[in-house]
Amino acid sequence: MYRSHTCGQLNSSKIGNEVTLSGWVQKIRNKGFMIWVDLRDRYGITQLIFDEERSSEDLMKKAATLGREFVIQVKGEVIERESKNPNIATGEIEVLVKDLDILNASLTPPFTIEDETDGGEDLRMKHRYLDIRRNPVKNKLVFRHKVGMQVRNFLSNQGFIEVETPYLIKSTPEGARDFVVPSRMNEGQFYALPQSPQTFKQLLMVGGMDKYFQIVKCFRDEDLRADRQPEFTQIDCEMAFVEQEDILNIFEGLTRHLLKEINNVDVDTFPRMTYDEAMRKYGNDKPDIRFGMEFAELNDIAKNKGFNVFDQQELVVGIAVPGAAAYTRKQIDALISWVKRPQIGANGLVWAKYNEDASLKSSVDKFYSQEDLQEWAKATGANPGDLILVMAGDAGKTRSQLSALRMHLGNELGLRKADEFAPLWVIDFPLLEWDEETERYHAMHHPFTSPKVEDIPLLETDPGKVRANAYDLVLNGNEIGGGSIRIHDKETQSKMFSHLGFTEEEAKEQFGFLMNAFQYGAPPHGGIAFGFDRLTAILGGQETIRDFIAFPKNNAGRDVMIDAPSKLDEEQLKELSLKLNIE
Amino acid sequence: MYRSHTCGQLNSSKIGNEVTLSGWVQKIRNKGFMIWVDLRDRYGITQLIFDEERSSEDLMKKAATLGREFVIQVKGEVIERESKNPNIATGEIEVLVKDLDILNASLTPPFTIEDETDGGEDLRMKHRYLDIRRNPVKNKLVFRHKVGMQVRNFLSNQGFIEVETPYLIKSTPEGARDFVVPSRMNEGQFYALPQSPQTFKQLLMVGGMDKYFQIVKCFRDEDLRADRQPEFTQIDCEMAFVEQEDILNIFEGLTRHLLKEINNVDVDTFPRMTYDEAMRKYGNDKPDIRFGMEFAELNDIAKNKGFNVFDQQELVVGIAVPGAAAYTRKQIDALISWVKRPQIGANGLVWAKYNEDASLKSSVDKFYSQEDLQEWAKATGANPGDLILVMAGDAGKTRSQLSALRMHLGNELGLRKADEFAPLWVIDFPLLEWDEETERYHAMHHPFTSPKVEDIPLLETDPGKVRANAYDLVLNGNEIGGGSIRIHDKETQSKMFSHLGFTEEEAKEQFGFLMNAFQYGAPPHGGIAFGFDRLTAILGGQETIRDFIAFPKNNAGRDVMIDAPSKLDEEQLKELSLKLNIE
Repeated sequence: MYRSHTCGQLNSSKIGNEVTLSGWVQKIRNKGFMIWVDLRDRYGITQLIFDEERSSEDLMKKAATLGREFVIQVKGEVIERESKNPNIATGEIEVLVKDLDILNASLTPPFTIEDETDGGEDLRMKHRYLDIRRNPVKNKLVFRHKVGMQVRNFLSNQGFIEVETPYLIKSTPEGARDFVVPSRMNEGQFYALPQSPQTFKQLLMVGGMDKYFQIVKCFRDEDLRADRQPEFTQIDCEMAFVEQEDILNIFEGLTRHLLKEINNVDVDTFPRMTYDEAMRKYGNDKPDIRFGMEFAELNDIAKNKGFNVFDQQELVVGIAVPGAAAYTRKQIDALISWVKRPQIGANGLVWAKYNEDASLKSSVDKFYSQEDLQEWAKATGANPGDLILVMAGDAGKTRSQLSALRMHLGNELGLRKADEFAPLWVIDFPLLEWDEETERYHAMHHPFTSPKVEDIPLLETDPGKVRANAYDLVLNGNEIGGGSIRIHDKETQSKMFSHLGFTEEEAKEQFGFLMNAFQYGAPPHGGIAFGFDRLTAILGGQETIRDFIAFPKNNAGRDVMIDAPSKLDEEQLKELSLKLNIE
Repeated sequence: MYRSHTCGQLNSSKIGNEVTLSGWVQKIRNKGFMIWVDLRDRYGITQLIFDEERSSEDLMKKAATLGREFVIQVKGEVIERESKNPNIATGEIEVLVKDLDILNASLTPPFTIEDETDGGEDLRMKHRYLDIRRNPVKNKLVFRHKVGMQVRNFLSNQGFIEVETPYLIKSTPEGARDFVVPSRMNEGQFYALPQSPQTFKQLLMVGGMDKYFQIVKCFRDEDLRADRQPEFTQIDCEMAFVEQEDILNIFEGLTRHLLKEINNVDVDTFPRMTYDEAMRKYGNDKPDIRFGMEFAELNDIAKNKGFNVFDQQELVVGIAVPGAAAYTRKQIDALISWVKRPQIGANGLVWAKYNEDASLKSSVDKFYSQEDLQEWAKATGANPGDLILVMAGDAGKTRSQLSALRMHLGNELGLRKADEFAPLWVIDFPLLEWDEETERYHAMHHPFTSPKVEDIPLLETDPGKVRANAYDLVLNGNEIGGGSIRIHDKETQSKMFSHLGFTEEEAKEQFGFLMNAFQYGAPPHGGIAFGFDRLTAILGGQETIRDFIAFPKNNAGRDVMIDAPSKLDEEQLKELSLKLNIE
């Protein structure tokens, strides 16, 4: 038996007990006549003491050979500590070591295994097994486990059944590129790894499973964007005999449950906002509503006042930045440079300070009177002390640029508080979006999403205006879930494929299995999928997901520790070529 | 709202209530003036009634158009049923329909959606979404979910953390062939899909995660054997600072918990048997101990009695078949033919009937006296009324043949009862096994398994004799779990690779990342993996796993419904060729 207790377990109630502990050497203080060792495991740290007066010479010698991250086992007596440490659970005691066994030595670790480490990210990623020993990383993995357990228990209690769907499937490209997997049993043929279990969960609904969920890995063979992994985890859900309202209620319930159980935060009914409103008010379909700074459209009051720059533009839109009237010229210039960066691409920024004395001073005083600027203040909701920022241009682009600026200011002003949670349903997404490159409509969500019944006639006349029964759950400015009510009859699904530019053969070839299934009594159904990596990170108060993944891939798509992928040897290449029917 | 209640929910306490139900039409009885419909969903069946006297003409007409598997929504009143059905929860009531909505029509299903269906396996697999509507399949998927939840809750309560390990990894072939996945980001390079998360869970132990588990998909690109899928699910576990005894205790606890919670069966401490004993007593490393028929070695009493057939053989071994003395000549001949089939490959079978009058009659009476045969009876534990069956030959082959015969008889005599559970630990497996084909030793479990300390010297002199710290959990004649205490120091692991015929470069190239990690304080650790598909099937009283998988692959490795894999188009082929660096 390697241990009677963990390193987080002993306290003054155990004084006098003989115990056995195992763990890693965190820290050593050697005063010659006395040696203290901090022994660490997943559960905590216990102080060990070797004492010339009470320990044998051999034991003192052995203890002196210990190094950081050595793995040891000790037997000894729990004694009261002289200088107590009220910050840790075991701070009242120490263990007077009587027996020391070195279970494994360690090279000096390349960075310190402390909460605040001296190791840079690359080094820590290279030795991820050492990084995981650090509390900040270890705690996030434990946190992720807890979130997963809460999700499963909640959904299971609601009658959802976790059903595993296959990983080696037929390629049914939707948007992103599939990873393909050559099959040895079927020469010249390939499996694909699922981008999501979408069609399978719909088949389960046809199969009467009624309420399905799965926490499942999904795959996209795409260039890594910041914080997006080629393999990611999804909480995938589907329900039969439901309308949008039913889905929103259940998954609002799940999210509220998580916020309560994980974060101890009570949240009221989630607000809802249409896609159009979100775009108008925040320039963004996943607005962070923890802070205001809502968009005010200024076309009526800012155009035709002699300021040509505005007059020619589709949209003039502004926000009030609270307390920022005190910004220096330098600070404002920095904001202007910020929006002019290629990533944002704005032409500039008009500003107006709403001074504490209620006077207004703007960068366009030549064109606008105090009364004009008062109108701006009224429209943007600015109070004395605030700074009004205005952009103009093509409506879509300008909204998106102002949204980026708003988020930038939200971060800069500390308005995006990690311990505050503001969930939001965004509903009524467009069904289709025009793709400039391919010059045709694409499904905004996916081709299985149903249009709103009242908008179906628009499919023939103005497809871009058709709204979908689609919804996103947004938390603190992050899309953490999205779903829709699906099409459940063959005819509508057929028409949808045709609107998306599929020929009848293509639709049959790729999705015939689903449309066939729809002929045998498919129930109305819908669902949602949550990004588990992102959800966990947001609940954990962070926006970067990588720390919540045990073995993330680095920017080259390689495993941080095991340098995957690797080259195939000649024999493997030959075999693959055969599979590919390439000579 | 599609329903106020499910089809399994209404009973006499709801009589008089207005309800809304949705589901599938299971059965229709149309007497013209009255129409009964059985409405089915995941939760049960509710009888609907349309009645000329109480329903409108339009409603009667509409009801008459319904067909099997139509999806409908009805509103109506819960009324008392005239002819009650005590066999179902809703048997006391029916719903008098006032409003009928046909949500989706259905073609006539290719087989009946009943517990006992008229559809053959191929047809049911082709339309798996219809097969899943049947109780026997649906219930097994729900059962699997329950087992999964119990496993997760038990392990989580024991302090295990579920950590997701990557699916796109470096290829580290162990035994079976890897599925490979070309990477678009790293030209000419490939990921592999994991055959198990073995090395990752060991890295998690190096990382101090202490107790890890995961219910996880694993992959083997191998020919499908009966009931083996190319993708399968594993309950994968690992613990640090443990000896074999700790692992056996924890996972005996898990298994006992499942038997109690899932099957309501109490099981005592699990018996343990060494690999050698299992092979000697049952000819099998996964013996079904629900019934006796233990092997008796008869070399001492059956050789050198003038029966040449036995004299030349390495092993003479027999079993007593309870109550089978009454077997006819024809029945015994059938057994002899059975063992002579090429799948078994035995030369023959010697038999001796131990008659109720205590006399013995054998197929070798010419060579053996009654006293000789009494010795056989004593050795095999035969009682009057039993049949003694004896085989002889090369020890390994003969044991395996007699084991097959024993299992065959166990099935034939109904001794393998589905509701009886006999778990068993098989321990002290050999570390290495000789492979005739490659003429070298292979790791019996895997190269990370530690040898027993006392057997290490044998590694140099008689490697085949070295026992491993490896163990299997056997349930009713099926291996449901297997694991080992691992090597945790670089030197021993290096030596092991060399014993397995790896050059130093090969070992470094393939497993360098693990041996490097071992240099930074790897704790002693060990673990186990359960076959989740098999475990679920066995707990469910079945040996075939396919029914417990929602979308199994058929014998060609294709998905039963979605005809994967598919051919790549020219563009995809070209892209892949580029990846492969093939012109």
